[in-house]
Amino acid sequence: MTLRDRALKVHKENKGKLEILSKVPVNTMEDLSLAYSPGVAEPCLEIKNNPSSVYDYTAKGNMVGVVTDGSAVLGLGNIGAEASLPVMEGKAILFKSFANVDAFPICLNTNDIEEIVSIVKAISPSFGAINLEDISAPRCFEIERRLQEELNIPVFHDDQHGTAIVVGASLQNALKLVKKQKENVKVVINGAGAAGVAIMKILVQLGYTQIIMCDSTGIIYKGRKKGMNPVKETIATLTNSIGLKGSLRDAMAGADVFIGVSVANLLTKDLVDLMSRDSIIFAMANPVPEISYENAKEWGVRIIATGRSDYPNQVNNVLAFPGIFRGTLDAKANEINDDMKLAAVQAIANLIEEKDLSNDYIIPQAFDKRVVQAVSREVSKAAIESGVSKLSTNSDV
Amino acid sequence: MTLRDRALKVHKENKGKLEILSKVPVNTMEDLSLAYSPGVAEPCLEIKNNPSSVYDYTAKGNMVGVVTDGSAVLGLGNIGAEASLPVMEGKAILFKSFANVDAFPICLNTNDIEEIVSIVKAISPSFGAINLEDISAPRCFEIERRLQEELNIPVFHDDQHGTAIVVGASLQNALKLVKKQKENVKVVINGAGAAGVAIMKILVQLGYTQIIMCDSTGIIYKGRKKGMNPVKETIATLTNSIGLKGSLRDAMAGADVFIGVSVANLLTKDLVDLMSRDSIIFAMANPVPEISYENAKEWGVRIIATGRSDYPNQVNNVLAFPGIFRGTLDAKANEINDDMKLAAVQAIANLIEEKDLSNDYIIPQAFDKRVVQAVSREVSKAAIESGVSKLSTNSDV
Repeated sequence: MTLRDRALKVHKENKGKLEILSKVPVNTMEDLSLAYSPGVAEPCLEIKNNPSSVYDYTAKGNMVGVVTDGSAVLGLGNIGAEASLPVMEGKAILFKSFANVDAFPICLNTNDIEEIVSIVKAISPSFGAINLEDISAPRCFEIERRLQEELNIPVFHDDQHGTAIVVGASLQNALKLVKKQKENVKVVINGAGAAGVAIMKILVQLGYTQIIMCDSTGIIYKGRKKGMNPVKETIATLTNSIGLKGSLRDAMAGADVFIGVSVANLLTKDLVDLMSRDSIIFAMANPVPEISYENAKEWGVRIIATGRSDYPNQVNNVLAFPGIFRGTLDAKANEINDDMKLAAVQAIANLIEEKDLSNDYIIPQAFDKRVVQAVSREVSKAAIESGVSKLSTNSDV
Repeated sequence: MTLRDRALKVHKENKGKLEILSKVPVNTMEDLSLAYSPGVAEPCLEIKNNPSSVYDYTAKGNMVGVVTDGSAVLGLGNIGAEASLPVMEGKAILFKSFANVDAFPICLNTNDIEEIVSIVKAISPSFGAINLEDISAPRCFEIERRLQEELNIPVFHDDQHGTAIVVGASLQNALKLVKKQKENVKVVINGAGAAGVAIMKILVQLGYTQIIMCDSTGIIYKGRKKGMNPVKETIATLTNSIGLKGSLRDAMAGADVFIGVSVANLLTKDLVDLMSRDSIIFAMANPVPEISYENAKEWGVRIIATGRSDYPNQVNNVLAFPGIFRGTLDAKANEINDDMKLAAVQAIANLIEEKDLSNDYIIPQAFDKRVVQAVSREVSKAAIESGVSKLSTNSDV
């Protein structure tokens, strides 16, 4: 059977991928009287009188809402809310399987920013955190920012930060191998969507100083007229301090690192030839990367990472989001701040000892059990140290 | 330990009552490539191209949203969204335990009708049906009506119809015992909230002709000025054809049946004494009924039913809603219409053979396994016969 047939079969045979089970017995009248009426009135009253006890008496504290509007699903574009449901169910079961986080898919029948923000706020009582998923740029930036400001539970857009964290960790390991310093490498990011912008931001925070971002119009620079928007204005101020202009070709000259979150087979041999020695490429277009593993090797690229599971160095968000949410929920944090994201970068990078690093092993495997433990522990610690955890100030929780 | 302590313990030890599990394996890269990227793109595209296949490839077709705004929770009143979560989780696990229906609690941070309607519409892609729960009257009537009109999945307000169905079934059995005919009995319903109105409506549909409804102002009649609203105007036209006026005391004179969805200990001996011989009382105030089982027996009531599990004849919604939703989802029905509700009444009533009926056994036990089977089968059949099932017209589904 083809992948297509196998994938359809596993979905159809099981009628989707998730189910909701009871954690308490429901076999006797006594069970019923505790889990439901009349006993259930007691935790209700406790929560009414002491709102924070909702984390003690309900599943809220371990429950993530996986929220999408179906506008940027995988590489499929705006396929709508119902068609996005298989991806959101998939995300939910990864949360459970990798980190014992309960997650439920919320697929919204609207693309309106105001509506999405107000709906997520209205349904937030059921959730301990919100994972935004597959919402198109630039709306995703405003939706995330608004929800982070207006909700009292953590909000995380995985397409941005999950990818950025894994790329940040992997690049750190790649630079160790090629013995270059982050302050000195020229990084070209092609694609100014959700993931590209988040990767840029985390690289800036990590101390990378020579970043050039390109979109379909070419290099993004201060004062560019064509195809700009508020997000790209911000990009222009955070990157390209030398004011480089021109096309992707112009950006590639002397680049040490190329990070693609763009389109299939974009990187031709002549573009790769413009890069400096010991070049590093992250080719994350989905499902067909900007350059194939085979071409990269043939054309002299030193290190190549893609989104594909069938080649080495898979940039897989599953390395990040399960541990990040596990650590955030464990710490009872009210946000996922930059310190926590950077802690996740270090946790992932440090899982591979320097002696074990190789051109084909800069990123831990998806099923490496150490990953979620390390990431959740470091994220929790960063939450507490940065003061966004309820455990920071209240030692008896 | 007291009930209170046991109830708090079971909630706290388990951190709530529900969890979300995967129905498919997630142990290998192959598993991951089918359940998530890249294989998951296939069911997404199938659904995009053929929207009804969302019922084949996702959990939607077995997923009920348990929606509340926390405004009328148990007998606790408007305790808010988060404090209602234990009840909604309880409902969700009853759905699963009794009928293998997956259900997820959606607790809304708003009491605004328009907002609730638009939010439920926006989140509906994730659900195969909506169970409205613990929303206060009269808002619950408009919210249910609007959603039934505007959504393409079934919507059911259990506090109304679940209770009404169980009362309808139980009263049918009680009348067999006392050998009275529904056309001839005088029924007093005290309480014009969600449950009271629904009980009245289903009794009218079942053929009861002498119904008097009371609220805190007294008997509801055409032309009454005090404390009326559009819902009570409707009540006045559907009941009380003789135009009786006065207090509950006036209504009780010669009543065969009293149905209370009102307040604790309301029925005093002198009120009970006004009823005719072989009186039947449904005292469903929660948790303390309008009259205790002991007082009812002492004062000569023939048949007494309450909401309590520690006395005979418990009017328990769990007899109705699991089977109703199971039958509705099995039939791929796009609504839960009156035929389906009346089919549920008959299914529940007929489970007790006439020879087995007694004053203390007019209602099946909550854990009687035959209930959900009988109800779901009859509800499915009614859906198909009334033409609201996709199976009605499409025999190969």
